[in-house]
Amino acid sequence: MDQKLFKYADLLVRAGGNVQPGQPVVISSDVADAGFARLVSECAYNAGASEVVIDWTDELSARMKYLRASDEVFDMFPPWRTDRFKYYDDRNAVYLHILSSDPDLLQGVEPGRIKRATKVMREGTKAHRAVTMTNERRWSLAAVPSPKWAAKVFPELAEKEAVEKLWGLIFKGARADGENPVKDWEAHRNNFLKRVDYLNETQFSALKFKNSLGTDLYLPLIEKHIWVGGGAVGRDGVPFFPNMPTEEIFTMPARIGAEGRVVASLPLSYQGSLIEGFWFEFKNGRVTDFGAEKNADSLKLIVDMDEGSRFLGEVALISNNSPIAQMKTLFYETLFDENASCHLALGKAYPYNLAGGCDMTERELAEAGANDSLLHVDFMFGTEDMSIIGIEPSGTEKAVMEKGEFCI
Amino acid sequence: MDQKLFKYADLLVRAGGNVQPGQPVVISSDVADAGFARLVSECAYNAGASEVVIDWTDELSARMKYLRASDEVFDMFPPWRTDRFKYYDDRNAVYLHILSSDPDLLQGVEPGRIKRATKVMREGTKAHRAVTMTNERRWSLAAVPSPKWAAKVFPELAEKEAVEKLWGLIFKGARADGENPVKDWEAHRNNFLKRVDYLNETQFSALKFKNSLGTDLYLPLIEKHIWVGGGAVGRDGVPFFPNMPTEEIFTMPARIGAEGRVVASLPLSYQGSLIEGFWFEFKNGRVTDFGAEKNADSLKLIVDMDEGSRFLGEVALISNNSPIAQMKTLFYETLFDENASCHLALGKAYPYNLAGGCDMTERELAEAGANDSLLHVDFMFGTEDMSIIGIEPSGTEKAVMEKGEFCI
Repeated sequence: MDQKLFKYADLLVRAGGNVQPGQPVVISSDVADAGFARLVSECAYNAGASEVVIDWTDELSARMKYLRASDEVFDMFPPWRTDRFKYYDDRNAVYLHILSSDPDLLQGVEPGRIKRATKVMREGTKAHRAVTMTNERRWSLAAVPSPKWAAKVFPELAEKEAVEKLWGLIFKGARADGENPVKDWEAHRNNFLKRVDYLNETQFSALKFKNSLGTDLYLPLIEKHIWVGGGAVGRDGVPFFPNMPTEEIFTMPARIGAEGRVVASLPLSYQGSLIEGFWFEFKNGRVTDFGAEKNADSLKLIVDMDEGSRFLGEVALISNNSPIAQMKTLFYETLFDENASCHLALGKAYPYNLAGGCDMTERELAEAGANDSLLHVDFMFGTEDMSIIGIEPSGTEKAVMEKGEFCI
Repeated sequence: MDQKLFKYADLLVRAGGNVQPGQPVVISSDVADAGFARLVSECAYNAGASEVVIDWTDELSARMKYLRASDEVFDMFPPWRTDRFKYYDDRNAVYLHILSSDPDLLQGVEPGRIKRATKVMREGTKAHRAVTMTNERRWSLAAVPSPKWAAKVFPELAEKEAVEKLWGLIFKGARADGENPVKDWEAHRNNFLKRVDYLNETQFSALKFKNSLGTDLYLPLIEKHIWVGGGAVGRDGVPFFPNMPTEEIFTMPARIGAEGRVVASLPLSYQGSLIEGFWFEFKNGRVTDFGAEKNADSLKLIVDMDEGSRFLGEVALISNNSPIAQMKTLFYETLFDENASCHLALGKAYPYNLAGGCDMTERELAEAGANDSLLHVDFMFGTEDMSIIGIEPSGTEKAVMEKGEFCI
């Protein structure tokens, strides 16, 4: 196990963030994951990091704060927190995030507090998110199973077995269980390239999604969109993998134009509550109606965050035969679940999904038709019978996916 | 045990920091002590804290950084860290510190790195230390046994027994093991008052220390000095206990004038190394010679930090019959060891040990004869045969302590 953990930590440093000699590294980690965070630190120093800073969080304290702090606290994001990001952004830091949240952490918390805290946090970290969303700074997310998370995924198992089983799926899903995982990820990147190149050359003007669950969506893509998959490339030319695992190929929809109905195929775990059986109606790009069988209130929090959270910022295609799709497991964690199924995101679009987007101002991005929001929330709508048709600029239709598998 | 821990956490909040409704609380804690830190948080919210912020540290990561980070890192103290203190100082926060350090943590670290990091840290936290050292903001220190610390104190015991035994001494030493510890601390405060009042009225111009270990020191006290013991009173009138435990009565020596030799009676644990068998020669207040049987290098780090670290900033009297003195245990932690024995401190003096000192500028304090330094390092020199004679302004001599016990 020790060696597996070390390989996984090393993978996060070398393939994930691709730390270069002399760079500071900022690790965000829950205090419960201190052991793994220290392994990541060690690997970062091995890779030549000038300094490793750990930004500790404690989800239990965060919950206590939500339940017991004075109300005005939730409208404050201390300037020093913004300055901290700026300090490390200015020094070209690599950001590594260790995820392990209890999916039910925020149950019972007043949703208004979460919404307000999220809003000021998003505003306070805007400049930092700008440099990560445009690949000016490298970053990577990886997961570690907490007992509560594992118990949620495998409620039928004892805690220890649940954690072990979740570790197994994480190692496998993150392709960290081979002899040389860093090399395996190189191969993984190359496998993406053909499909990505085809999609970028074809430049479909729109995609049509249809399945038996009730999804029937016409989705125009932004002009000069760029499909991305198999990792990203920093603006300095250094490749990295923002997400481990990653099985998706994704691009930017046009802000205006989506028409039809989307029915989610997996529940969405959002800030501690599980939104189930939900759907959206789109008219001219905007969510005009929505509903959920469970936790519709939380869905409303997302949709009503700001004007941009009613529009789409990402469309991602994943084949049925991705290793994570094959696990047939609901992870209650977007990092994994988004790699099991085609998905859309409400909210901010990634500028690198648009030719020249990383050099555009916010206004230029908006004028080009990119969506903006404080949020970016993925939700799954892929199924085993998903059909996707691409419409070429000439009007010719081409099958992109049939019965959930690529046919390009 | 759960109830004992809860009482101890509550004591730190109510008697230690004396948190008042609406105040933010900043807890500093190692990630290994997360469980206790959360208990303290809970007690702080019970006392009406508006918000609890935990400033997490991780001593193992700190050690890794000392060993592996780039050299220039040790001359930097990021401005956001200064701003963070200012943010909470401005909001009238109470600071609670949980101590649990492995006394040997920094063994093998290059001393120059520690010295440089300490220097920039002290400079970066100068404004914050000013408001805590003048009692403008309340703060309190309490200890929690880490396995490594416990193993150092009781090397003959197995880890579990060592931790249990250290917990026992901490509860007892911090007077946290009674039915109602908060009340016990009220009584503790009142017991100090008579002796403190006598000393403040008498206004000895100097003290003469002598014992069989070789100490023979003439120590002038600053004019209008104030003896403090049994806790402090915030500038807003709210009482608090900066240290738990506290058994000392202490005041400010004059910067100029100490003459003679001081031989330490206990080793000094300083930044990971244990300085043993050490002594100082004072001439006109200044350390003119010093030596140690072990780790003289670390002693040199202290003495040479700056000019002020060669002069005295505190003299504290502790009776042989204090509960901690009775334990006859070397704790390798100043918070405990300083309550076992009379001690002196090299470095900065506390302004509240001088009448009007809290309202003086740095320059006025210096002109009044108070010592200033980036450091404040306590060391023990009390023994069972310590004799202290006080010299009244008239020249009359009075016995203050005989054979290690007060005779006032």
